Amino acid sequence: MYIRNAWYVAGWASEFGQELTSVTVLEQRLVMYRTNATTVVALEDRCPHRLLPLSKGKRIGDDIQCGYHGMTFNCSGACIRVPGQDNVPSSAYVRAYPVEQRNDIVFVWMGDAEKANTDLIFDMPEFTSPQWHVHQGDALHLKAHYLNVAENLVDPAHVSFVHPTTLGNAASENVPVHVDTQGDVLVAWRWIRDAEPVGFFQKFGGFSGNVDRWHYYYLHLPSIAVIDFGSASSELNLEEQDRNQGVRIFALHFLTPVNEHYTIDRWLHIRNTAVDDEAASEQMDAMFRIAFNEDKEILEAIDEQEQLPQSRKPIRLAIDKGPTVYRRRIRDMAEQEATEDLGEPLHPTFVHHE
Amino acid sequence: MYIRNAWYVAGWASEFGQELTSVTVLEQRLVMYRTNATTVVALEDRCPHRLLPLSKGKRIGDDIQCGYHGMTFNCSGACIRVPGQDNVPSSAYVRAYPVEQRNDIVFVWMGDAEKANTDLIFDMPEFTSPQWHVHQGDALHLKAHYLNVAENLVDPAHVSFVHPTTLGNAASENVPVHVDTQGDVLVAWRWIRDAEPVGFFQKFGGFSGNVDRWHYYYLHLPSIAVIDFGSASSELNLEEQDRNQGVRIFALHFLTPVNEHYTIDRWLHIRNTAVDDEAASEQMDAMFRIAFNEDKEILEAIDEQEQLPQSRKPIRLAIDKGPTVYRRRIRDMAEQEATEDLGEPLHPTFVHHE
Amino acid sequence: MYIRNAWYVAGWASEFGQELTSVTVLEQRLVMYRTNATTVVALEDRCPHRLLPLSKGKRIGDDIQCGYHGMTFNCSGACIRVPGQDNVPSSAYVRAYPVEQRNDIVFVWMGDAEKANTDLIFDMPEFTSPQWHVHQGDALHLKAHYLNVAENLVDPAHVSFVHPTTLGNAASENVPVHVDTQGDVLVAWRWIRDAEPVGFFQKFGGFSGNVDRWHYYYLHLPSIAVIDFGSASSELNLEEQDRNQGVRIFALHFLTPVNEHYTIDRWLHIRNTAVDDEAASEQMDAMFRIAFNEDKEILEAIDEQEQLPQSRKPIRLAIDKGPTVYRRRIRDMAEQEATEDLGEPLHPTFVHHE
Repeated sequence: MYIRNAWYVAGWASEFGQELTSVTVLEQRLVMYRTNATTVVALEDRCPHRLLPLSKGKRIGDDIQCGYHGMTFNCSGACIRVPGQDNVPSSAYVRAYPVEQRNDIVFVWMGDAEKANTDLIFDMPEFTSPQWHVHQGDALHLKAHYLNVAENLVDPAHVSFVHPTTLGNAASENVPVHVDTQGDVLVAWRWIRDAEPVGFFQKFGGFSGNVDRWHYYYLHLPSIAVIDFGSASSELNLEEQDRNQGVRIFALHFLTPVNEHYTIDRWLHIRNTAVDDEAASEQMDAMFRIAFNEDKEILEAIDEQEQLPQSRKPIRLAIDKGPTVYRRRIRDMAEQEATEDLGEPLHPTFVHHE
Repeated sequence: MYIRNAWYVAGWASEFGQELTSVTVLEQRLVMYRTNATTVVALEDRCPHRLLPLSKGKRIGDDIQCGYHGMTFNCSGACIRVPGQDNVPSSAYVRAYPVEQRNDIVFVWMGDAEKANTDLIFDMPEFTSPQWHVHQGDALHLKAHYLNVAENLVDPAHVSFVHPTTLGNAASENVPVHVDTQGDVLVAWRWIRDAEPVGFFQKFGGFSGNVDRWHYYYLHLPSIAVIDFGSASSELNLEEQDRNQGVRIFALHFLTPVNEHYTIDRWLHIRNTAVDDEAASEQMDAMFRIAFNEDKEILEAIDEQEQLPQSRKPIRLAIDKGPTVYRRRIRDMAEQEATEDLGEPLHPTFVHHE
Repeated sequence: MYIRNAWYVAGWASEFGQELTSVTVLEQRLVMYRTNATTVVALEDRCPHRLLPLSKGKRIGDDIQCGYHGMTFNCSGACIRVPGQDNVPSSAYVRAYPVEQRNDIVFVWMGDAEKANTDLIFDMPEFTSPQWHVHQGDALHLKAHYLNVAENLVDPAHVSFVHPTTLGNAASENVPVHVDTQGDVLVAWRWIRDAEPVGFFQKFGGFSGNVDRWHYYYLHLPSIAVIDFGSASSELNLEEQDRNQGVRIFALHFLTPVNEHYTIDRWLHIRNTAVDDEAASEQMDAMFRIAFNEDKEILEAIDEQEQLPQSRKPIRLAIDKGPTVYRRRIRDMAEQEATEDLGEPLHPTFVHHE
């Protein structure tokens, strides 16, 4: 189950250059490259003649020449040359996907091209604010379904158990979770008041006494997560809207569903502390890598189990509110995509009288 | 086709300690560990919440806490804690499997728990007799169906061809095989009288002249084999019941069906010669390893062939009597397991008048 | 889709000796060996008893003894011994395949044995002529369907794009291709007149000026290709029938379909230049290896794509004439094999009045 009408991250800007690069998103194989004008292009990576991936061919200026018989396509996917004949058959084209680069991230639109609205591309003002430091992390590859990976990113309850040495500790085990929906964004959050700082904030907050700690999980449907977490001295008794007064970090996760058992999670972080301190960035990367590999181990083990025969239905708990709302929204979006073009029936079979 | 109401070997006693160990038997994944009282526990290795194997969690005393959201189960499989809520849903449990340790071997019952009768666990008096030396061998992993592995253990006819340098030689190629059924034990046997000793007894018997050699294959249904083999000087003209007067070895094979193409064969040997001589044990291990790897090569090649399309039915020979009886018994046991709870119909559809 | 009534190459003569060798052709596993009289035998590589490949057994003179229970088969596939019983069941045999060695190549007939006509075995007079030098190359293994591999060998249009540094260059990109059918041989050819010599003929032709270059692709159905290519000084203005006056090379490809995604391409070359010059043979091998690995990369990428879901039909181009005719002929041959034994109906259901 994929949502197609959405901007997905195809890669960091640095992943794309003049050379032909093959990228798979929602099981579609794309060939991507920068034109001489440095804009990024994404075409269907399969020649319509004998199915050779075009990424095995070569560039002729801004066009791609297939590596088998030389059919050549321009960057809007139109065939401009068939060696051995003068005419070009009308079926000789490859699909072109809308692409947009923003904040050093390359987004690709996987649905109907006419619905590709660049206003919908994920952004936040901290990317370009001098008070904040942006640092790109890694591309974590997980043998897991993107719905399970995303669910994990709107699930504060796992932190105490999966990340006890970095992002959580026992203080939060029984603290209730709030969940809300704001348009296409789900939010799950909780505050742990007056507790020992967790590993991360011991290291980067410089706190000596107890802190108030928050976790806000914003899930931008279908698959971009912003985890806003931070700590402030408990003496401040910080209000929700004053989080910038504490040590605050946004961990962003851009999930790219490759197929139903493979997801790439490109993550970066934005912080209001240690701005321009590259050593701090690297220490944070190291800590995040520990934490995210803890998630990876669990998510891959679950993917394996989900593929085995099941003898009973999984159970749902009170802490599942975020994941449950998330899955319901995804089902609704998929349903809407599958039906949105039908329109009203001319002669309805069933008429509802109120 | 598995027989569920049976004790299977989950491992040697030494394979289980305080740590959580994942073991697969009949395609069921179990998490096993020793409690603080050192008894071994086996639980379903899958949290009913999000399916994470419990073996990825951690012990809290004698209980297991799931590594994802902290659901905690005691050693009878009951859930005793759900973080974030006070009540425990009735579906929050994992299956517990009866476990019994005997003769340094851990057995697990894979069928209905109320039918688990410890009197049915395999045993033999030589395990605890001072005249006999018990030595644990290896756990041989075979990519083969357990029925084919077991069949091989009630099949004296393969020995001359598969193990010509260790357990057999040409003298036995045409010697007839006897087969009998004693309750839940099949026996196939033959004596090769007045022949050169085979490799094994040249090495461990110290024979200079011809010997009488016997092979008795006892198959305890469904999947434990005892191979009683030995030699005595032909001059003694030994009777069947006097085998203890010769050099006698029991090679025991405990087959654990992991899935339909993977079987673990844990083997050990018990002997009335070279008692307490560890060097002899190791030499025997070495010879058994050669022989059992010869079986492994053949059984894995057959498993591969059986998965390919078949153009004709396999043929059965006179020497197949043991295997044929074995497979028929297994089919009967599986049939009985599938139907034993139906009871007599109240209103029979068909009435048989005699 | 396989054509069964055909001679396929099982290997070079040097691949077969006294030892038992397992070879797979058209998904059939064969055990092959040389008898003491040095003729090559091919039997079904599966004992009819417990399915063990006979290649895991051992030779007893010219016969094979199964490695499991000693059933023994002679080189026409008849069972001549069943240990433990006197009679031999009528179903105890393995299929024997007609084999013929010619020009140091071993051919096996995969269809009805009574149709195996040795006159149909591929041959050409240059194999034994002193004016020509024969040199065996490699066995190239491709994870690709043999129809795609063969299609590539009747497709002159790919040479400019796949082999630009060795066998082709840009001069031929738009030169038309002729296609003809001569019985069970398809021919596709083109001449590139008055152009720079390609890499191969720069190296082996010693040409200083422009040349006329030809490519003739003879595809002997179902899967043997002869590529006749050569060059001569353009000043000679060579006629088609005078190609021996130029530097001429035959590259032969014997395709063995192993299964639907695996093909072995054994290739050799025959030339009228540098006769008996082994250094030249090795230099040619090196150049061919570069070129054939270029094909391999493309054919394996296509095989991968063909196994994925397809959203539209592949398109056919003017240059596809050779491949298109080839595939139609193969379909006709397969159809004929599937129906040839039906004969005329005695009481036709449909009568056609003209």
